[in-house]
Amino acid sequence: MNTAAASQAETATAPPVLVVGSIALDTVQTPFGAVSEALGGAAVYSGVAASFFAPVRLVGVVGDDFPRECLAALQERAIDLAGVEVARGRTFRWSGYYEYDMNQAHTVSTQLNVFENFRPRLPEAYRDSRYVFLANIDPDLQLAVLDQVSAPTLSAADTMNFWIERKRDRLLEVLRRVDVILLNEGEARQLCGTPSLATAGRMLLEMGPKIAVIKKGEHGVMMCAHGCRFAAPSYPLEEVKDPTGAGDSFAGGFVGYLAYTDDPTEENMRKAVVCGSALASFAVQDFSLRRLERLTPEAIMERCSEFRRISHFEEICDLPQARTPIGRADHV
Amino acid sequence: MNTAAASQAETATAPPVLVVGSIALDTVQTPFGAVSEALGGAAVYSGVAASFFAPVRLVGVVGDDFPRECLAALQERAIDLAGVEVARGRTFRWSGYYEYDMNQAHTVSTQLNVFENFRPRLPEAYRDSRYVFLANIDPDLQLAVLDQVSAPTLSAADTMNFWIERKRDRLLEVLRRVDVILLNEGEARQLCGTPSLATAGRMLLEMGPKIAVIKKGEHGVMMCAHGCRFAAPSYPLEEVKDPTGAGDSFAGGFVGYLAYTDDPTEENMRKAVVCGSALASFAVQDFSLRRLERLTPEAIMERCSEFRRISHFEEICDLPQARTPIGRADHV
Repeated sequence: MNTAAASQAETATAPPVLVVGSIALDTVQTPFGAVSEALGGAAVYSGVAASFFAPVRLVGVVGDDFPRECLAALQERAIDLAGVEVARGRTFRWSGYYEYDMNQAHTVSTQLNVFENFRPRLPEAYRDSRYVFLANIDPDLQLAVLDQVSAPTLSAADTMNFWIERKRDRLLEVLRRVDVILLNEGEARQLCGTPSLATAGRMLLEMGPKIAVIKKGEHGVMMCAHGCRFAAPSYPLEEVKDPTGAGDSFAGGFVGYLAYTDDPTEENMRKAVVCGSALASFAVQDFSLRRLERLTPEAIMERCSEFRRISHFEEICDLPQARTPIGRADHV
Repeated sequence: MNTAAASQAETATAPPVLVVGSIALDTVQTPFGAVSEALGGAAVYSGVAASFFAPVRLVGVVGDDFPRECLAALQERAIDLAGVEVARGRTFRWSGYYEYDMNQAHTVSTQLNVFENFRPRLPEAYRDSRYVFLANIDPDLQLAVLDQVSAPTLSAADTMNFWIERKRDRLLEVLRRVDVILLNEGEARQLCGTPSLATAGRMLLEMGPKIAVIKKGEHGVMMCAHGCRFAAPSYPLEEVKDPTGAGDSFAGGFVGYLAYTDDPTEENMRKAVVCGSALASFAVQDFSLRRLERLTPEAIMERCSEFRRISHFEEICDLPQARTPIGRADHV
């Protein structure tokens, strides 16, 4: 598995990753440029990110206006589109902008269009999927997908504030049924009703999943498991062109690496967090899927090494013991 | 150096750390309690933190009302107080509170009192100090201290938004003269005029220091040196009782460890960042200096190990190579 040839063989036979979520046309403006009706959506970002590690099965819906070149971009990544429904009507569209600090997306408009009536139906061949990522959609739909997969090795779900507020009970049901919950720090605080991420991490585990992954944007990621916590920094980028899709790219890289290695142990999940962080760092370097589309495995490898250089320090095993007073000043 | 006995011998002979800054009586309220006129001040937090690693020489000023028990607390840590001036008048007082999220201190009142006319004068014996930490004070005073030390192995300075706004030129002169600048993320962004911490880190190095340490509170620390970046998480605490002094405790632990090891290389600075982070994590677990006062070297060692468990991941050396398409869906 350490040579290129072995890796290549390994990839082709890795268990496929099932990705369910939105496929969108995004119109985005940031201080560094803009795109109009560009390929986007949580399932697209996470699917493309996962495709660097394992075969991907995509489940979502597009309208009959979905551009051929957007389909081509997904096919280019060898993503299996048998689960993508083409419905009559317009594709889901999101429009938003980011201010200079890039931490907060400001939504201008959300047109659900064909996504409004999306009911995920898995092709028969997808039901044996062993790695499942439920991108941010209605928890009822996430549960419907879980009902359709036979026995996943690992299931992971993302969510958002909208569902925390409107469908809390159904979301909690999702948490009881998945292995991994991914959410951002604001959502973690909101769902758990605490300002402390350490407390939120513990509470999330009490809600059911074995692993909670709290995404902190430019501040990296915190992963909590029973008896273990792991923190990874984000990659320090001087220029972030478009933060759209960062969290989904993270999730895709994370689940993709777990599928590729077929090893959902806590120790390996640390590496998966780093792979996810690497994919997210690439995604934000250009608009839409542009950077991921021209990404190479070599660049991913190099960035993962860089993450290790950034995080690594030697064991500290030479600290002083208790000291005795060395004399006191008399004048005070 | 790996046995307790060797460590103990090592500590006693470590180069002393000179700490210059405020000595205060703090009145603080947080959602978890309150203290009135408790021992505080940047020099106190950093001096006490550093005292776990090396002898500390404190330079500051107190009024003639400074409580005996506060002095005793410093003497308990074997801190050399020959440089602490006792002036006629009242000690510097700060009063503030924190809301539930604990990220932002709200100042109720600042009474400079004797601190207003503080002009640091180093005792003759302090001039050979090889490790120097200039806590957050007027950059003119920081420069005056640098004029009084003969040839420090390592000098480090902290600052705050007040000086960035009012004494930018003098602060820039400090940056040209110290080896390490420490500041928090908001201050780094403000000083460099950029939202990107990666850019701020690079710009800070261009201003003079060899090392820039950007403190991000609950999100940890980023250290930048030429050709190297290091990120350490904060310790995930469920309960932060009082964040006052976290940054200063970090600085004290950081400089103290460098003095103790007498090794200001970049590789060793990573460990110093972790020691600083450990000290900061203890400081916030109780009000005033309470937690640091009962801290043991064993507890520091244990927390540093915990930091390594939280940050560590194995090299990722088995990523897949480029993949070929695995078939396309015909129906889209």
